Amino acid sequence: MKTIGILGGGQLSRMLILKAHEMGLGQQVYVMSENAQDPAAQVTNLWTKGSFSRLQDLRKFLKKVDIVTFESEFMDCSLLKSAKANAEIHFAPSLKVMTTLQDRLLQKQSLKKNALPTSDFLEVSNYIQLVHAYNHLNQGHGIVLKARKFGYDGYGTFVIKSIKDVETFTPYLNNPVGFIAERFIPFDRELSLIVVRNKKNDIRFLPLCESFQKDSRCFSVHGPIQKNISSLKKNIERYLKQINYQGVIAFELFETKNKILINETAPRVHNTGHFSQNALTTDQFGYHLLAILNKELPSSKSITPGFAMINLLGTSSQPPQLKTNTAGFLHWYGKLENRPNRKMGHLNIIDSTPQKALQQAKKLYKEFKL
Amino acid sequence: MKTIGILGGGQLSRMLILKAHEMGLGQQVYVMSENAQDPAAQVTNLWTKGSFSRLQDLRKFLKKVDIVTFESEFMDCSLLKSAKANAEIHFAPSLKVMTTLQDRLLQKQSLKKNALPTSDFLEVSNYIQLVHAYNHLNQGHGIVLKARKFGYDGYGTFVIKSIKDVETFTPYLNNPVGFIAERFIPFDRELSLIVVRNKKNDIRFLPLCESFQKDSRCFSVHGPIQKNISSLKKNIERYLKQINYQGVIAFELFETKNKILINETAPRVHNTGHFSQNALTTDQFGYHLLAILNKELPSSKSITPGFAMINLLGTSSQPPQLKTNTAGFLHWYGKLENRPNRKMGHLNIIDSTPQKALQQAKKLYKEFKL
Repeated sequence: MKTIGILGGGQLSRMLILKAHEMGLGQQVYVMSENAQDPAAQVTNLWTKGSFSRLQDLRKFLKKVDIVTFESEFMDCSLLKSAKANAEIHFAPSLKVMTTLQDRLLQKQSLKKNALPTSDFLEVSNYIQLVHAYNHLNQGHGIVLKARKFGYDGYGTFVIKSIKDVETFTPYLNNPVGFIAERFIPFDRELSLIVVRNKKNDIRFLPLCESFQKDSRCFSVHGPIQKNISSLKKNIERYLKQINYQGVIAFELFETKNKILINETAPRVHNTGHFSQNALTTDQFGYHLLAILNKELPSSKSITPGFAMINLLGTSSQPPQLKTNTAGFLHWYGKLENRPNRKMGHLNIIDSTPQKALQQAKKLYKEFKL
Repeated sequence: MKTIGILGGGQLSRMLILKAHEMGLGQQVYVMSENAQDPAAQVTNLWTKGSFSRLQDLRKFLKKVDIVTFESEFMDCSLLKSAKANAEIHFAPSLKVMTTLQDRLLQKQSLKKNALPTSDFLEVSNYIQLVHAYNHLNQGHGIVLKARKFGYDGYGTFVIKSIKDVETFTPYLNNPVGFIAERFIPFDRELSLIVVRNKKNDIRFLPLCESFQKDSRCFSVHGPIQKNISSLKKNIERYLKQINYQGVIAFELFETKNKILINETAPRVHNTGHFSQNALTTDQFGYHLLAILNKELPSSKSITPGFAMINLLGTSSQPPQLKTNTAGFLHWYGKLENRPNRKMGHLNIIDSTPQKALQQAKKLYKEFKL
């Protein structure tokens, strides 16, 4: 019986562990994070205190497990390599894949090299390069400047709408993390596609869904979206085989009038896949666990013609008032501190159409005082 | 924020806690049991070691909580009364109700007194009374002799088919627990009805379902069963109001050609209600938590035209081989020891009809080596 170690104690780790309990894998899943009150620490007897940036903590944790997986893509892969006590330990996804996908520049290069559709981009590390990138990439809607690493929910991302703005953003370039500039895509809508693969090359696609952002954070997701994306799927299949990807991976997409571009990919379970907990017979968390154990992936059936997910984002530092008896499926993360825009939980809804589910989700959302 | 204490560390407690985590109640739910590896102990950071039969353990545990609820009906209610440190602590269901319903004789008397349909019965504590009970109750199918307390899954239950058998069973009567004899009901099928009530008198009925027993243990459940039971529901409503019941309660029913009789009732979440985890928008575990917190009970919508649940019962003392990637919804209990007929987990299935769901459940059941 292989043991799994999850690095990270937040909500994604929590939901992986809750699913593991259901599936009978709970006593094989260890988790390490800094605080005994972390969302994941609350739901298991196999939590360990430790820091990802401390070699000795990682070493100690890695000794206990056969397979390591990640809640976040922003782990220090070279530190993990050093912490790897024995040759047998297995990272899923691999450290090579993580190293590529955690860096937006390497990620874009990897997508491009493998003929996956994505917007044009340039590496940027100084003023001259930023001006060049603006002039080269701008097609009337400006460019997007992104930190190569550690960005999420809009942190580290800046839209540069005109050449005058270039100077405003130049000071940011001092950050040693490095930057990438991308053409701004005036998309019609944002879509998301969650995919899972094991090393036997079983691949499953979750239903395509649409996502809405509010203040650069995912606010809602609904689906399934009816759209023929078979050629994109084929390309993704080829890509994941090429990099021998293992686990769940999320593709955030821009849809424009005549094409679909990959905006970003995240090598882990993903906020836009939470709908699967109540809309499918196998959800993204179950799939990730099966994939990293390299088990055959069952097909997941839709149990509803329409689904929606709405994030319950904090609005203050007061403890939120939970509507525990909502008519929706509540998934709360148990975070001790509330903060404006912090992801505190989410609500899943199923209904007869995607639009009805989304409307219902928005209605039920108002019951919460966040 | 009221804290809840669950007495018992088995699968029912485990599933209550897993649901509490989802609903954002996880850090309000404490649990006490004897072993740190118990099913419920694995899924929380709020487990306490303790024995239900030790006053000092109960006292210590009860000090931490506002509301106490039960995984099993066979708790020592007078010991709990002694352990009750302060007047504020609240038992849900109440100790008065538990005292009545945990004793089959008092339970039957209570049902009868409140005009709920149930088979005829007599108290039995010696040979003379057993002969009398046989002669009085037998209508051609014999009688059932049951221990007044601590019986479950057929333990402590004996069918006496002929007067000759009476002597065979007489030695059992020495057990100080006491006995009750009931008329044997030649039923057509066994049904189950799960009900939940809070103290505001909100009442919700889960869909009626049919259950199959194998070796006196619940083997499968499927539904919804279409049958007009409105007068039974009305009587149950009146009864639960009368005893001011709080929480989930299960009614196991016998259906005969022309009537429905209550076989037994269990004052807790129940094996025959597990289908609700994947067939309804609110399940029995969520309902129980809301009811004991005296919150308004949302209506639970069916998300499928057919459902089934099949118990994964051990068949040996070897560790079972889990099919973690089953197409059904697996709920595993994490018990360290396998035993023949031990409830190790269950599988929920949803499908287009109850019969199809049951067939599918039986098919998927075969994938497990238990």
